[in-house]
Amino acid sequence: MNRREFILAGSAMFAAGLSPKLFAASPTATHAQTGVQTQAPLKVLALVFDDYETLDLHGPLEMLGHLPSVEITLIGPQPTVRSYQGPRVVADRLLDAVVECDLLLIPGGMGTRKLVDDTRLLDWLKRQAKVSNKIFSVCTGAALLAKADLLDGVSATTNKMAYSWVTGLNDKVIWQPSARWVDDGRFLTSSGVSAGIDAALFFIAQTYGEAQARKIETLTEYQWNSDADKDPYAVIS
Amino acid sequence: MNRREFILAGSAMFAAGLSPKLFAASPTATHAQTGVQTQAPLKVLALVFDDYETLDLHGPLEMLGHLPSVEITLIGPQPTVRSYQGPRVVADRLLDAVVECDLLLIPGGMGTRKLVDDTRLLDWLKRQAKVSNKIFSVCTGAALLAKADLLDGVSATTNKMAYSWVTGLNDKVIWQPSARWVDDGRFLTSSGVSAGIDAALFFIAQTYGEAQARKIETLTEYQWNSDADKDPYAVIS
Repeated sequence: MNRREFILAGSAMFAAGLSPKLFAASPTATHAQTGVQTQAPLKVLALVFDDYETLDLHGPLEMLGHLPSVEITLIGPQPTVRSYQGPRVVADRLLDAVVECDLLLIPGGMGTRKLVDDTRLLDWLKRQAKVSNKIFSVCTGAALLAKADLLDGVSATTNKMAYSWVTGLNDKVIWQPSARWVDDGRFLTSSGVSAGIDAALFFIAQTYGEAQARKIETLTEYQWNSDADKDPYAVIS
Repeated sequence: MNRREFILAGSAMFAAGLSPKLFAASPTATHAQTGVQTQAPLKVLALVFDDYETLDLHGPLEMLGHLPSVEITLIGPQPTVRSYQGPRVVADRLLDAVVECDLLLIPGGMGTRKLVDDTRLLDWLKRQAKVSNKIFSVCTGAALLAKADLLDGVSATTNKMAYSWVTGLNDKVIWQPSARWVDDGRFLTSSGVSAGIDAALFFIAQTYGEAQARKIETLTEYQWNSDADKDPYAVIS
């Protein structure tokens, strides 16, 4: 069995729904860190809204979607939403509900510029956060968390191209100007767009072990920037 | 104006719909190579189907979607299709039509395993290819092009994890076992999943100039693997 065949065999095992705990380096420790039941399907809930940034959402979903057992649900304000780049996705659930989940994914994008003033959305986010084990923002998704006062006292980061706007929304957040992503307890916040892919692989490594993250990196022919401290787009004041 | 402000100013110019020719290194030369009218909106048509691979589609669309003027249309066999990772997208057009376009994007994914035997799809692909200036496959999307006899005599590549399956479909293709992507006339074929992002940036550089590609790389905080010959997942026989 060569390297590729090994990977393909692994993929078939994923498809067969074998337990992720087989791959976890230290399931007990990771469970304590992320609150995720690694023996059950990972329940991912992702917020979608008009003018979300395409890769903020679909980059992390690509990586999470290769876990051995995962259920991905999109939730949004209306049945279909349009990304900033144009294509539309279908919301599986509407914002009249909150949904218990292991991981709540909040993408960013131009749509957040309006949503930071949308009290209905911010109220939903506060309620939804209470039934989410871990909360993961990408890019300016952190603006929504900050505006909902969820990041007060939390170390966090955001898109470096929109850094002054996002950080100006809430000065109780411990904003990090140089970080590909920041993991602080229940909150994982990544830098802009592509950084969400790297942070998703970090979450996978943290929860299911690094071997699992490396397997998915290979399956997707990705080159993981696995060092959170290495930020080529850091803000230098 | 610091580096970030420069980028944001550029982004505002994009939003205002300024002509991409402002950024093109050599519009006349790139037009000759790709057949794209760089003064008009870039018309991108992307095929979607059940069990397409999420990032094969949305990675390139992220990059292309930041061009100054672009129209992205999804076309599929039914009104909504589900990715291999679960979430659904809306098809703007159905496969009863062919649509003139500058760039036809064909993603891969597990869904291609059935589609290589779908004569209706292959017939559509042959007709659609005739009204597409350039055809760009990601991952096992090349399997569909190969099975439709579109790559005969063309230098091409595909997902290295599925290399033996794809290359076994058509021995008239000049398959490349080591390439992040291959550009051969009207056909741009990339390696697996994430390689589609790198190939999309190559297309942007080729058509609109490298400065445009680098601007989008920065906007998306991506780290472009810009060397087509550097393939960390090359097949070594």
